Amino acid sequence: MQRYFINQNADSLQRFSIIDKGDIHHITNVMRHQIDDEIIITFLDQFVYKCKIINIATDEIDIELVERIDIDSELPQNITVCSGLIKADKYEWLLQKATELGASEFLAVGMKRSVVKLNESKVTKKLERWQKIIKEAAEQSYRLVIPSIDYKASLKEVFQQIDVYDYILIAYEDAAKQGESSNLKKVVKQFQPNDRVLVVFGPEGGLAEEELALFNDSAYQVGLGPRILRAETAPLYVLSVVSYEVELFD
Amino acid sequence: MQRYFINQNADSLQRFSIIDKGDIHHITNVMRHQIDDEIIITFLDQFVYKCKIINIATDEIDIELVERIDIDSELPQNITVCSGLIKADKYEWLLQKATELGASEFLAVGMKRSVVKLNESKVTKKLERWQKIIKEAAEQSYRLVIPSIDYKASLKEVFQQIDVYDYILIAYEDAAKQGESSNLKKVVKQFQPNDRVLVVFGPEGGLAEEELALFNDSAYQVGLGPRILRAETAPLYVLSVVSYEVELFD
Repeated sequence: MQRYFINQNADSLQRFSIIDKGDIHHITNVMRHQIDDEIIITFLDQFVYKCKIINIATDEIDIELVERIDIDSELPQNITVCSGLIKADKYEWLLQKATELGASEFLAVGMKRSVVKLNESKVTKKLERWQKIIKEAAEQSYRLVIPSIDYKASLKEVFQQIDVYDYILIAYEDAAKQGESSNLKKVVKQFQPNDRVLVVFGPEGGLAEEELALFNDSAYQVGLGPRILRAETAPLYVLSVVSYEVELFD
Repeated sequence: MQRYFINQNADSLQRFSIIDKGDIHHITNVMRHQIDDEIIITFLDQFVYKCKIINIATDEIDIELVERIDIDSELPQNITVCSGLIKADKYEWLLQKATELGASEFLAVGMKRSVVKLNESKVTKKLERWQKIIKEAAEQSYRLVIPSIDYKASLKEVFQQIDVYDYILIAYEDAAKQGESSNLKKVVKQFQPNDRVLVVFGPEGGLAEEELALFNDSAYQVGLGPRILRAETAPLYVLSVVSYEVELFD
């Protein structure tokens, strides 16, 4: 069942209104819900409730809370997917899939070997578009939070803020070619809940020497297995294996 | 560096010819190679050689072997990704990414809840198109083999051949909703080299009750973490975690 986000904290004694045009369209035209139908709402404080539709208007759908649903669908770690700019359709696909797989945050970075460049004047509009894609994916995959996204003109700008992260991983193609096959597993097995992890992925052309050198001792260079993964695939590998390590048990 | 496949066994004393039109186009027009340039060739017996271009003609590129390259880029297990038919563009993305991630074989199946149906008369053409996508992805990701693909009109047809598989996993959405979080890890940790593994994924609408019932005791129902993954994302999760478990070390 599709879930929707409401940007307020849950309150079972209160009624709420859905005012997002996209959500209203989805509820009324796509799902064709009617009064008394139940839908699932995720609130700002990450509480999830089964709710009943009380009223439907063109610009507002009123709901009341029925029952709380207990499911923690968030990864215990906050994973930031930091990617060099790649072709638009591939990046949008990546945002959708990485959101399904639990990413916390996206950084789109103008890296040295990016074939794609982003004009400063177009950044705001791009970020809006990307945020919309992320929100839809978060709703469909039952996320409790909507990942954020930001643009950085260079990896240097990202590096200036690395202190907020507990771990920095660089998915480095040559590491894999040289047979590096243990860093990722060693690091992931050390993860604690709420750790903030920055994972850096190069664009189609890979990371430049000076970009790698930036991070030097601050980061682990990790191989992602012996096959070459494309720029838009590599983040999905990392997110999947973190989930496997920390959310599945044997 | 792009690799190309030659459908013969390697022989360092012999010269070979590339005759595939797509490869010739890529070598001459995209990469603009010239005589004496080196390219990498993967042979039918999975040997990989650095080769030198001896001659370039419109319908044939002749090469001689220079040096063998030792890298095993294949997963130790043979993973069959068995998917219900989904929208064409999503399936093509899936084929490309799952090939990068090491899948051995694809089964495209007309499942009960598939929104997309495939007309028998169009099957051959579709398979050709899909095979081409798989081949290109295999070349770019340095696979030693090109995964195969086949179409089955129903999951029942797949079930009739399950004896060839050592393990059968069903990625079942409701298993995850009910909190199933251990089957996948338990099973993957038991994998031996050369095991044949069938993994069944439903279409957008999920697997039907009777399709699940088909496999009953023959299969493990596995949850893929607490987030709902789309039909085209779930196989990438499974392939990534198998790689992590069997190809990375701590």
